[in-house]
Amino acid sequence: MTTENGLTADAPQSPVTFINVFEIAADELDAFIEKWEQRARLMRDKPGFIDSRMHRARSTDSRFQLVNVSHWESQEAWETATADPDFASRTRAAREESRQPITPNPAVYDVVVELTAP
Amino acid sequence: MTTENGLTADAPQSPVTFINVFEIAADELDAFIEKWEQRARLMRDKPGFIDSRMHRARSTDSRFQLVNVSHWESQEAWETATADPDFASRTRAAREESRQPITPNPAVYDVVVELTAP
Repeated sequence: MTTENGLTADAPQSPVTFINVFEIAADELDAFIEKWEQRARLMRDKPGFIDSRMHRARSTDSRFQLVNVSHWESQEAWETATADPDFASRTRAAREESRQPITPNPAVYDVVVELTAP
Repeated sequence: MTTENGLTADAPQSPVTFINVFEIAADELDAFIEKWEQRARLMRDKPGFIDSRMHRARSTDSRFQLVNVSHWESQEAWETATADPDFASRTRAAREESRQPITPNPAVYDVVVELTAP
């Protein structure tokens, strides 16, 4: 069910996949991943966190060098966790410290098709 | 180890995550997902396929409405599977049938950070 603002009405209480697609220069990657891991460890202790994986492109030619995929017990739990002021200030600092702009594209998703090997 | 073309030299034989970030208009989603699932079922029977999930954004305002995350036993297995002419022609047809442009951003990734709840 979709509401007028485009959010599914039953979203807050069901498990959710959070995906963040990063646009970042290849020579910023190592420093960024190190700081990102520190922030992710803060998230791990929050209620509702399930797991998180940071993916790095094998080719430096790929448009999106980093993609984070995390699972949370609910959208509400994820929103509460990311509202932590310490987390927010570290995220802001990481972006300001980079020499070239880093564009995160965070959003919450539902799995609509799932296939496993027969 | 990174080679001159930006690919890691040991990539072909290790497990790999394939991620495809789609730029697609919200009103094309239902039709696209249906056709995508048919193509994904072709992939499921290929050697080296592990699993695949299509994620749909909860908000129609999100920049990337669809993100596919698949796991393969090797980059080589994934490359061989996607070279299937039937798969390639269906993929092309799906793009040509849409009223608005659909931009896929496919790439292969390694997991560089993995965290699970304590």
